Amino acid sequence: METLKKAAETYGTPLYVYFEKAIRERARIVKEVFRGVNLLPTFAVKANNNPNLLTILREEGLGMDVVTKGELLAAKLAGVDPLLIVWNGNGKSKEEMVHFLEEGVRTINVDSFEEMEIWEGLNPESVSFFVRVNPEVDARTHPHISTGLRKHKFGIPLDLLDRFMRRFKNMNIKGLHVHIGSQITKVEPLLEACEKVVEASRRYGFEEINIGGGWGINYHGEELNVEEYKEKVVPLLVGFKRVFVEIGRYIIAPAGFLVLKVVLVKKRKEKVFVIVDGGMNTLIRPALYSAYHRIFVCGKSGAGIRADVVGPLCESGDVIAYDRDLPVVEPGDFLVVENAGAYGYTMANNYNSTPKPAEVLVKKSGELVLIRRRENTMDIFKDVVM
Amino acid sequence: METLKKAAETYGTPLYVYFEKAIRERARIVKEVFRGVNLLPTFAVKANNNPNLLTILREEGLGMDVVTKGELLAAKLAGVDPLLIVWNGNGKSKEEMVHFLEEGVRTINVDSFEEMEIWEGLNPESVSFFVRVNPEVDARTHPHISTGLRKHKFGIPLDLLDRFMRRFKNMNIKGLHVHIGSQITKVEPLLEACEKVVEASRRYGFEEINIGGGWGINYHGEELNVEEYKEKVVPLLVGFKRVFVEIGRYIIAPAGFLVLKVVLVKKRKEKVFVIVDGGMNTLIRPALYSAYHRIFVCGKSGAGIRADVVGPLCESGDVIAYDRDLPVVEPGDFLVVENAGAYGYTMANNYNSTPKPAEVLVKKSGELVLIRRRENTMDIFKDVVM
Repeated sequence: METLKKAAETYGTPLYVYFEKAIRERARIVKEVFRGVNLLPTFAVKANNNPNLLTILREEGLGMDVVTKGELLAAKLAGVDPLLIVWNGNGKSKEEMVHFLEEGVRTINVDSFEEMEIWEGLNPESVSFFVRVNPEVDARTHPHISTGLRKHKFGIPLDLLDRFMRRFKNMNIKGLHVHIGSQITKVEPLLEACEKVVEASRRYGFEEINIGGGWGINYHGEELNVEEYKEKVVPLLVGFKRVFVEIGRYIIAPAGFLVLKVVLVKKRKEKVFVIVDGGMNTLIRPALYSAYHRIFVCGKSGAGIRADVVGPLCESGDVIAYDRDLPVVEPGDFLVVENAGAYGYTMANNYNSTPKPAEVLVKKSGELVLIRRRENTMDIFKDVVM
Repeated sequence: METLKKAAETYGTPLYVYFEKAIRERARIVKEVFRGVNLLPTFAVKANNNPNLLTILREEGLGMDVVTKGELLAAKLAGVDPLLIVWNGNGKSKEEMVHFLEEGVRTINVDSFEEMEIWEGLNPESVSFFVRVNPEVDARTHPHISTGLRKHKFGIPLDLLDRFMRRFKNMNIKGLHVHIGSQITKVEPLLEACEKVVEASRRYGFEEINIGGGWGINYHGEELNVEEYKEKVVPLLVGFKRVFVEIGRYIIAPAGFLVLKVVLVKKRKEKVFVIVDGGMNTLIRPALYSAYHRIFVCGKSGAGIRADVVGPLCESGDVIAYDRDLPVVEPGDFLVVENAGAYGYTMANNYNSTPKPAEVLVKKSGELVLIRRRENTMDIFKDVVM
């Protein structure tokens, strides 16, 4: 807590702060769960694209799961071997395909017949394709981050796989890929999806598999039980020559904190509003997904007030948290949002013409390092032509 | 439609395109509604912050309604007289107050007792304060953009106004301010709020008033009936020496279009997915507010398919539109999103490490002018320290 305060005093707020030690610990938990499996763990760069953090994950032996040219660039800046990069996504254009091949990426998750037809036309050498299947499993998470039903835009329904394999028998298809959603806290849907896809893999004699990610963290009570996952899901994977997983949030969310400064405390008979210097511009998850993040106040404890924590933007949806029991706070206090390491900075925006925050890394030694500078107001207009 | 196609071919996609003629026409409708009133119309910069567009609005005689230092800078870049700028917002810090005073802003909407106490300490000269009141009127719009209830973070409940006026009798309070929300399509809630605030204004002998904005546009059927507004609301305002209004969306939304390119058409038995090159990164309103935007395809008409229009990001919420009847489209077609001039670019983000789009203005002469360059992939990492 002292470290977070020091970081905020040194670099200002709003500020994302990440702890190297926690990142490494979480990465090791993932690897430990799959012990005995021929694993290539990849990190989902969409959760966090800071190359300094990706470098730590590279050192831990992780590859990268990327969706766009920008995410590929992030991995490149982190020095990740292109052969450890998996390209995912439902909207790959031909121009991007050429770019990814030129950059040396050789593992591609294909999302549709229509995408594979373009790959067929390009006829790339030594590329391994994985077919994303849609297993019709309900991830039981927020609708926006649930992806494993037929109504979702992702993948090929399992019952069309035969047709797909016949149609593209000349392509180097090495296995299947499944990802049913994000922030899944129950093992059952993950198990159900894995069973279906392992069974289909055996039918086609695939020796590799990509089982996606989606491991839920403890925002508010329940986290995925990785022991149960290890017991139930991992044994299904032992026979495979290579098993890819894509983990983002589970590793990086708990390693990151968002520090905000209290600007004003607005007391009403019915309610207290704690107004902080970052809102839906800095962390959009509460507004976008009704997400819950635990909050604490640096150097204060106990429950003195019940408050909504809101941002300074001109919109009622500009909220960090509703109805929280907090210590009595005053302007200048630092308020810390937990589990902010994933989908925090990467989803930040400049709404109300506000600059994006800075990012700081707390190294194992305790040293603070600025890993992304704060934007300034003029940056918001950097691309304007007058 | 030819113009939009030409713009997309020239400047690429995703692309925001604005029409000068439409901007001026909409600004004139607003002024016409208030004919006979001593009006200072202001434009809500949060809807669109491109200084080139603000310049057009300045030429039409509009002042600016700003919330942050960034929006003040946008107004400044557009050459707006600081005396025509109104500063709004619930989270003004003391440091920002000093900045706004230095920049010459002299009209301030005060949101709370706590804010006014800071102003009292600063004791600024020749500043006009307006007190934002919360009239307890339900705007009947999306909860995120409804602001006129006690549970919302904005303003002072009307029943506390007496106490406020006594407490700050030495401050130069010139009138009341009310704004009950955004995208309001019925006159009644606007009328109800205005009646309450006009009545309170008379009680205190105020000769000025700020009645906010919130005029709803026709995204999907109904638009605010401005004739009815003129008939019912405007007469209440005739006696005032100065009437401020804050209009953003109503002016700029219908003057702007988002042009997207079809990347892939993914056909399934149950459903067609039209995958375009911009999604919730480019236009977040459908994901954030379940907003509806009409869509058409350049150079094609009729209804050949029923499709979800989705972006290329790795998330099911990455949707532009659900279940639309569209012509048969193919990769390379341009798809146009209507009413994208407001809360489009200003809410855009770099999710999935994607660059922000470009903006083009179609001048009255028909000439196309690039008014904001497209970001490139490296821009996403411009602030990274390695």
